[in-house]
Amino acid sequence: MVSNASYQPYPQQRLTFVLVHGSWADAHFWDGIAAALYRNGHSVYVPEYAGHGVDPNKNVTHAMVTKSVVDFITQLNLRDIILVGHSFGGTVVQKTAEQVPDRIKRLVFWDAFVLNNGESLADELPPQTRQGFEQLRASSKDDTIMLPFPLFRDLFVNTAPLEVAKQMYAVITPEPAKPLFEKLDLKVFYELPTPKSYVYFYQDNVLPQGEGFGWNPHMSTRLGLFRLIVGDGDHMTDSRTGPAMVAQKLYEAGRD
Amino acid sequence: MVSNASYQPYPQQRLTFVLVHGSWADAHFWDGIAAALYRNGHSVYVPEYAGHGVDPNKNVTHAMVTKSVVDFITQLNLRDIILVGHSFGGTVVQKTAEQVPDRIKRLVFWDAFVLNNGESLADELPPQTRQGFEQLRASSKDDTIMLPFPLFRDLFVNTAPLEVAKQMYAVITPEPAKPLFEKLDLKVFYELPTPKSYVYFYQDNVLPQGEGFGWNPHMSTRLGLFRLIVGDGDHMTDSRTGPAMVAQKLYEAGRD
Amino acid sequence: MVSNASYQPYPQQRLTFVLVHGSWADAHFWDGIAAALYRNGHSVYVPEYAGHGVDPNKNVTHAMVTKSVVDFITQLNLRDIILVGHSFGGTVVQKTAEQVPDRIKRLVFWDAFVLNNGESLADELPPQTRQGFEQLRASSKDDTIMLPFPLFRDLFVNTAPLEVAKQMYAVITPEPAKPLFEKLDLKVFYELPTPKSYVYFYQDNVLPQGEGFGWNPHMSTRLGLFRLIVGDGDHMTDSRTGPAMVAQKLYEAGRD
Repeated sequence: MVSNASYQPYPQQRLTFVLVHGSWADAHFWDGIAAALYRNGHSVYVPEYAGHGVDPNKNVTHAMVTKSVVDFITQLNLRDIILVGHSFGGTVVQKTAEQVPDRIKRLVFWDAFVLNNGESLADELPPQTRQGFEQLRASSKDDTIMLPFPLFRDLFVNTAPLEVAKQMYAVITPEPAKPLFEKLDLKVFYELPTPKSYVYFYQDNVLPQGEGFGWNPHMSTRLGLFRLIVGDGDHMTDSRTGPAMVAQKLYEAGRD
Repeated sequence: MVSNASYQPYPQQRLTFVLVHGSWADAHFWDGIAAALYRNGHSVYVPEYAGHGVDPNKNVTHAMVTKSVVDFITQLNLRDIILVGHSFGGTVVQKTAEQVPDRIKRLVFWDAFVLNNGESLADELPPQTRQGFEQLRASSKDDTIMLPFPLFRDLFVNTAPLEVAKQMYAVITPEPAKPLFEKLDLKVFYELPTPKSYVYFYQDNVLPQGEGFGWNPHMSTRLGLFRLIVGDGDHMTDSRTGPAMVAQKLYEAGRD
Repeated sequence: MVSNASYQPYPQQRLTFVLVHGSWADAHFWDGIAAALYRNGHSVYVPEYAGHGVDPNKNVTHAMVTKSVVDFITQLNLRDIILVGHSFGGTVVQKTAEQVPDRIKRLVFWDAFVLNNGESLADELPPQTRQGFEQLRASSKDDTIMLPFPLFRDLFVNTAPLEVAKQMYAVITPEPAKPLFEKLDLKVFYELPTPKSYVYFYQDNVLPQGEGFGWNPHMSTRLGLFRLIVGDGDHMTDSRTGPAMVAQKLYEAGRD
């Protein structure tokens, strides 16, 4: 899985990872990746956040989601964290970093949203996708959005065998809509001197690749000086089929 | 060749592929790829079209080219087709899909033109390339365009060993010019609900990669919702040197 | 390391490489790559240029740098050269090609600057980077620029293990600033019919990837018709950790 055999002679630096999942996922999204990081000697924490996992309440705000992660970090008294956000998790990492900057060693965004100050995630969607989300939201009874399988299959797990795509779809639940449409105050984030990395998987097509949209360079360059790591993968499949590869890329993004 | 070993445990779904080649090629372009698909259990059809292969008449229109493919499909009564177009073949796939939509399961464009309604292929070429094509066309006696070897070598088979480049060049013949300059009515195409995929090889430089030109995202995003599959290859070399890799990518693009 | 096993059956054509390093490097940058090319039967030359290596004088101009390379080539009477420039070395290749065009078989730019006529390298930097360079320049006593380690680590050797990054940083010295800010007359370069190639490593983030900046397609397409070769690497790391891979890519760029 690891592209460059010459990385092997160097034992991995031991890091403390906190992994923040995205939408249509819960903390189990990280199971394989966390195990691979753990096997390589790292400490790995996988907070669940409001409106996800076993939480029956889907009526949550972005602030509640962020509070879940901030509380997790402070209650466990974690320090020198490599704080990783995937997809929507990028916005949670942005807000979390504002609240506990001294506990964070480096921020890692993996095909994750990096919002401008005052933006919502929905502001960064192509018009057609945004419209689709708004329709799905309007048709739900509890202000959630559920991805239809064909959209999930072709955009989120495009490289997966059908069997894997179905297994991954089977465990997702409707996503609370509000946090995706809330505009976020990110003035503090853009003043933080915390080192930053961006991990980009080049088969990821959740956002179309090109000017005006996309993970890299559109989102990534908002970080200012950042470390770029590129891998061969899509938005979600590799968490299941190639967790050791993902773990290696996150390590490359997180190490000193 | 296949990037992710974890794909192996799942037996391949059996699909029916119809493979439509591009310019400066004939149906033999697909020989290795078709054999690799066939070995994996798929049905594979490789129509030749007007003005190509053994057809002595180079004075053909885009409609004649499309008719060849449509007739091939209807006469063999093919259904549930994965219809694949490479390069210029993308425009043939667009027009074919308009005529036999009910026979098609999914459209796959592999570094292929996806024209806007009312456009010609020539409209999508960078000005310099278009000028070059127009000069080559004007200097021919039968309204064809023959690629000079240095251009073919550096743009179409850039990753090939010289020996392979020469072998591939030896079998190409002058391309009928008219279909490349005809503007196509594609209103019906853009109403089709048929699922679509785009396969992009990132060393392909036939179209310069960037805004205003290029395969992905410039052409691909015209498909609306589509499944992206990315591979390491150029425009033509891998059909000869890596057919099993290409077959795998086409399968990933075509499967449910 | 080499991606396509089918390249192996063809013995490598024997070429004459002249390798021109970039900023914050000296001729030893090429040690591993030159050895790999030599092992494959090529002649390899690695000129040092003014202001670099053992030269104690940092007060140099772009013309002096170019003269070093031109003199090296003419004194050794080299012909049929594959002239390779890396990074800043691209600008040296441009000016050298103007002076000894008849000795050059092909120009190869590897994540290298290709300046427009009348531009300086600094004109191609994003505003923030340019500002940073100007501040570093102003704070030096001898009109040089020294990269701080965090910037070198995250931008130039982003994929490297920390140990490798430190080893590579330990040998770099302050870079003469003047040649980076001199505007170059390149009218002759843009009239040269010499074949050209561009080698792009997709984890290279020294220039942000996107419109207005970046190696490919922003710099590369200035070459007009060119052969593109893409590899998995960053700006400098692979010269140390994957020299055989780099050598293979330069060979693919340089062969007939």
